[in-house]
Amino acid sequence: MAGSGETRYELYYWPSIQGRGEFIRLALEDAGASYVDVARLPDSQGGGVKAIMRLIDGKQGGLLPFAPPILKVGEQLLSQTANILQFLGPRLGLAPANDEGRAAVNQIQLTIADFIGEAHDSHHPIASSLYYEDQKPEAARRARIFLAERLPKFLAYFEKLLARNGGGGYLVGDALTYADLSMFQVQAGLAYAFPVAWARESLRHPLLVALRERVAARPRLAAYLASERRIPFNQHGLFRHYPELDAV
Amino acid sequence: MAGSGETRYELYYWPSIQGRGEFIRLALEDAGASYVDVARLPDSQGGGVKAIMRLIDGKQGGLLPFAPPILKVGEQLLSQTANILQFLGPRLGLAPANDEGRAAVNQIQLTIADFIGEAHDSHHPIASSLYYEDQKPEAARRARIFLAERLPKFLAYFEKLLARNGGGGYLVGDALTYADLSMFQVQAGLAYAFPVAWARESLRHPLLVALRERVAARPRLAAYLASERRIPFNQHGLFRHYPELDAV
Repeated sequence: MAGSGETRYELYYWPSIQGRGEFIRLALEDAGASYVDVARLPDSQGGGVKAIMRLIDGKQGGLLPFAPPILKVGEQLLSQTANILQFLGPRLGLAPANDEGRAAVNQIQLTIADFIGEAHDSHHPIASSLYYEDQKPEAARRARIFLAERLPKFLAYFEKLLARNGGGGYLVGDALTYADLSMFQVQAGLAYAFPVAWARESLRHPLLVALRERVAARPRLAAYLASERRIPFNQHGLFRHYPELDAV
Repeated sequence: MAGSGETRYELYYWPSIQGRGEFIRLALEDAGASYVDVARLPDSQGGGVKAIMRLIDGKQGGLLPFAPPILKVGEQLLSQTANILQFLGPRLGLAPANDEGRAAVNQIQLTIADFIGEAHDSHHPIASSLYYEDQKPEAARRARIFLAERLPKFLAYFEKLLARNGGGGYLVGDALTYADLSMFQVQAGLAYAFPVAWARESLRHPLLVALRERVAARPRLAAYLASERRIPFNQHGLFRHYPELDAV
């Protein structure tokens, strides 16, 4: 897809999960951007987890990242998902033209970041460095409250954003932004992790569900989702399916 | 402090805690900006928690906030701490002039947001809606790992940012930004919440400690910190002091 002179993006993210990197992948894929998912290349081609570690170790210069996802554009390194998306948004045609609209998209993206952090912590309430199996009672307790209180509260908020925006089914303005792509991904993750709770909640949030379907039907995104580039959900990412946490 | 024609900012945040709102207050105070801390006014003057709730309920128009802090500037509503700071930064002289520097400050601010989220969850690992007393065993477990793994990891990262930046003791570039103010606040909060752990960690992070002292000595900030506008730390905010969580 790379034309001559076109910007070439290098994404550095864990090669075996969707995780937070998927929010970046979706933006790049929807825009048909030219990018390399570096850590998914073999080690012999400079890929693998080692490629991420070289940036985290700070041996390559640029602003030090705390954790992936990391985007490399020329010599500039960017990290933090919402920060990367804010950089990419205008360049990929996925952000409003005016500053107020861009701040709105950023605000929503940051609220999505809070939400997925809570979704993650429902299976890892004590520490990411411990196995789920080592924090099961705590996870059961946290997940129960997450599903009863937090999930409905966040979804009602996002649904209300769609209802208040007269823009034809997008979160901000009258055209798709990266926040809409992220909102698709959040729903896909919830449907994987909490199928029982999601079946109930999705009935209450028709505008969100319509947004998810609209995004999934975009030609480039549909092609991506059907490709091998889309890593399947699994038990190592942000969203994990433990049936015992999905009880009502 | 309001000159005629000067922008007047309205901050909406819980009136009895520092919390996330304090990161906004510090920027406004350091810049000598004209602002009203609306919820700290009496109800009879349109203040109190009710003033926040009117914005959260969405009855006033503007982009719906999920939670405070909220900044009102004319008719524009902004929420999410890092988003508000990104808006204020250039207007208050607390951000670099160029886009790359601004993205760097935003990236650091988002990493600070992750860090303080983890600091909060060390005393509330199960749910913010439950009392600490209802999640003490889980908090003891989470806090132990927070102090042993996460605190040193985050502090080492921020220390390294200072070491790598040849800019005279600031996180980005050669002048103070809102991320430096936030880094002061993080250290103040940690010293309150975890005095034992902090005494140990601060010895290992001299550049961070020097930054904290440099920020605290800024004339406007020193005046603010000594004033009644600075709400003391207490057991309701992000940072809470439970001696049993501060054990080595």
